[in-house]
Amino acid sequence: MDHDDDLRDGPPPGRSDGLLDRLRAGLPADALITDPDVTVSYGRDMASFCEAGTPAVVVLPRTVEQVQHVMRTATELRVPVVPQGARTGLSGAANASDGCIVLSLVKMDRILEISPVDRIAVVEPGVINADLSRAVAGHGLTYPPDPSSWESCTIGGNIGTASGGLCCVKYGVTAEYVLGLDVVLADGRLLTTGRRTAKGVAGYDLTRLFVGSEGSLGVVVKAVLALKPKPPEQLVLAAEFPSAAAASAAICAIMASGHTPSLLELMDRTTVRAVNALGRMGLPETTEALLLAGFDTPHAAGDLAAVGELCTAAGATEVVPADTVAESELLLQARRTALPALETLKSATMIDDVCVPRSALGAMLEGTAAIAAKYGLTIGVCAHAGDGNTHPVVCFDHHDPDESRRARESFDAIMALGLELGGTITGEHGVGVLKKEWLAQELGPVGVELQRGIKRTFDPLGILNPGKLF
Amino acid sequence: MDHDDDLRDGPPPGRSDGLLDRLRAGLPADALITDPDVTVSYGRDMASFCEAGTPAVVVLPRTVEQVQHVMRTATELRVPVVPQGARTGLSGAANASDGCIVLSLVKMDRILEISPVDRIAVVEPGVINADLSRAVAGHGLTYPPDPSSWESCTIGGNIGTASGGLCCVKYGVTAEYVLGLDVVLADGRLLTTGRRTAKGVAGYDLTRLFVGSEGSLGVVVKAVLALKPKPPEQLVLAAEFPSAAAASAAICAIMASGHTPSLLELMDRTTVRAVNALGRMGLPETTEALLLAGFDTPHAAGDLAAVGELCTAAGATEVVPADTVAESELLLQARRTALPALETLKSATMIDDVCVPRSALGAMLEGTAAIAAKYGLTIGVCAHAGDGNTHPVVCFDHHDPDESRRARESFDAIMALGLELGGTITGEHGVGVLKKEWLAQELGPVGVELQRGIKRTFDPLGILNPGKLF
Repeated sequence: MDHDDDLRDGPPPGRSDGLLDRLRAGLPADALITDPDVTVSYGRDMASFCEAGTPAVVVLPRTVEQVQHVMRTATELRVPVVPQGARTGLSGAANASDGCIVLSLVKMDRILEISPVDRIAVVEPGVINADLSRAVAGHGLTYPPDPSSWESCTIGGNIGTASGGLCCVKYGVTAEYVLGLDVVLADGRLLTTGRRTAKGVAGYDLTRLFVGSEGSLGVVVKAVLALKPKPPEQLVLAAEFPSAAAASAAICAIMASGHTPSLLELMDRTTVRAVNALGRMGLPETTEALLLAGFDTPHAAGDLAAVGELCTAAGATEVVPADTVAESELLLQARRTALPALETLKSATMIDDVCVPRSALGAMLEGTAAIAAKYGLTIGVCAHAGDGNTHPVVCFDHHDPDESRRARESFDAIMALGLELGGTITGEHGVGVLKKEWLAQELGPVGVELQRGIKRTFDPLGILNPGKLF
Repeated sequence: MDHDDDLRDGPPPGRSDGLLDRLRAGLPADALITDPDVTVSYGRDMASFCEAGTPAVVVLPRTVEQVQHVMRTATELRVPVVPQGARTGLSGAANASDGCIVLSLVKMDRILEISPVDRIAVVEPGVINADLSRAVAGHGLTYPPDPSSWESCTIGGNIGTASGGLCCVKYGVTAEYVLGLDVVLADGRLLTTGRRTAKGVAGYDLTRLFVGSEGSLGVVVKAVLALKPKPPEQLVLAAEFPSAAAASAAICAIMASGHTPSLLELMDRTTVRAVNALGRMGLPETTEALLLAGFDTPHAAGDLAAVGELCTAAGATEVVPADTVAESELLLQARRTALPALETLKSATMIDDVCVPRSALGAMLEGTAAIAAKYGLTIGVCAHAGDGNTHPVVCFDHHDPDESRRARESFDAIMALGLELGGTITGEHGVGVLKKEWLAQELGPVGVELQRGIKRTFDPLGILNPGKLF
């Protein structure tokens, strides 16, 4: 399946021939895929409506040296490289460009070390998030970042997109867990950044620069990750609110009074109904906004009771604390199915990821409802509400050109609203292809100029994931 | 006091004249100091044995526009600028160079906003760390980073050096609390980075790049800082160990068994004696290593008891938990006087700041003792032991050339040992002038090349704090 003449839809054959020959010189045969029926499946991540090209070849290296060989070859021949994890991203950051090398890191999937004393794990980029979580749990430890796709997404992808998840309101995002990296640069050289230590300030923080850089500065081949002691099991409460405004007031009251929930999530009525329809979850459908609050403290039941009172004071019509961990887990599962459930409502969805200051959450939710009304569309909202991070999901029929146009316009209007409220266009999904016009608007011209300068410093030929971010 | 002819020891007068005239055009008269008797006092921070030059002028702006005017002028005339906070740094990063503009941010000292709902503070760079801590405490919040100099150091200086403190073992370093920045660039343009939101991944993390950059990339004029709910008061335990190895074993056991102390500090016998001599603290002088462990949890007494048992199991000869918060605070005060106490032992000190993986702490402490013996010097060690961050303090007579040489050699030997053990040359004090040769060794040539590339992107003329870091 790796015959050159399979590349019917790829770039000019001359260039491809040379490329494949050069790649083969430093890679085992099974590390290359050139069959277009197969390479096409590596073309895009899970974002809708993002351009994606046809790769010349997909490479699946197993060693750092193989990655270096790929990058040296790409530099020599000036071929673009698109690094990929599990392609669960939601911004098109892993989408192929025409004639590129797709560099999939999924076969580099070893957990190299777990140290309970140093509270670190050292991993290759292809390790699945949930596999790492399970492995460290055996040592009494936890790796908190838990994107919805945690059962399939990779640590390398998490680093590339600076993923978040449900845990962030207490435990923060991926960036806060990356201590050091080994990175293969555009020209194939190996860079080691950061540290294995708890602290360190030796020079500019290159580690953090790579986190969220969407494969545009280098290829992560090893990561030193911080771990935390495994907390007690989480107990979760569900509270029903008659309006988004009341739920937002409850969230502000919870955070202002010094609570530190391990989870503080919101689903609107559209989302609750979709979740029930998909999974028979039995969530209350009469509520306008369902709030889930969790605590993983030794005194979780007491914390839930205190937060329940704040919810009632803010106008909750019903407050139901789970009695058991199993019940709590069911509520979490319901929340985790929100995106797939909303995807069943129409033929297509566009998922926003606006994060606003917590104090502006009410305005963001009301403004989103107004946008849905204005454009005549269904927009279901689930939110990492404690962080002010909303995911308005625009549902539409992509066969209907007018509805598709309105979907894109409402998607943009939601980002504009987020910026107006002092927020950001992306809390955790990244920029990729989907939001690159918007990135410039958020950063401003000085910010863009400096970011481009950094890009040039790391990738002077512009071969790493071109066409993303900027 | 701001007559040009006061600049006897400055750079060539022609250049200075032009410089002062240009600066005066955009600054109030009281924002400039040119009297060399006064400017000399802005020449250096608290690091020993670091080169320091004579500034041409000290500028104390009160507004962002004034900072922009200074940087535009400096760019036009190609004059180096050394940004300064309270000059409490320990690496010479704030030391003047000959003919430079010292840009002191201490007059920009307003707390602009404190939001309990968003858990942020917005501050100017000259705000004193302890002033911010007290101000947010009134809102039930805490700003954790607490360097020893917290009563005098500024937030801008903390950001420039990525300061740590006693809190880090639980709460991390300054970097983790900086969400967004306003920065005046070398050419006077204003850059806004980051966010006011809990999460955000829009583009490369420029905010983090500035943290720890020692004024070499831009001048921070505003910061959005994350706050945490104020925890319960801390209770502290003191444990005496017959050896550094036993104390290190206790620390590893504490961390490996999932405890999260708010403080885990170590003082060796030399330090304990010096602290007693300075402040009549009554610490036990027969111990080889005194460990302080603190908890700020709702169940602190129980946590102390559990940790006390781990200490005993690791060989502690005495374990004394404080009964009250006041007693605990006394122990903390003793720890905070460690550096000044060690400074009284000889005419001069050099303070190391090596951070090793926690599991290598025992080897680091034993190796440091061996270095002290080899060079025939007193080296007192205090350590943020829970982080593996040791501060060996080399005490010597700086009038004695041979002892001075041995001091420098032992200081370097300690850094070499730290690197050998997988650590970093600086956990929290930064590089400045003191460790710039060592930085290159830690980063390696590829790392240095990229860091220089970033420097060029932000400061193509090299006028921002030249001669530091690299």
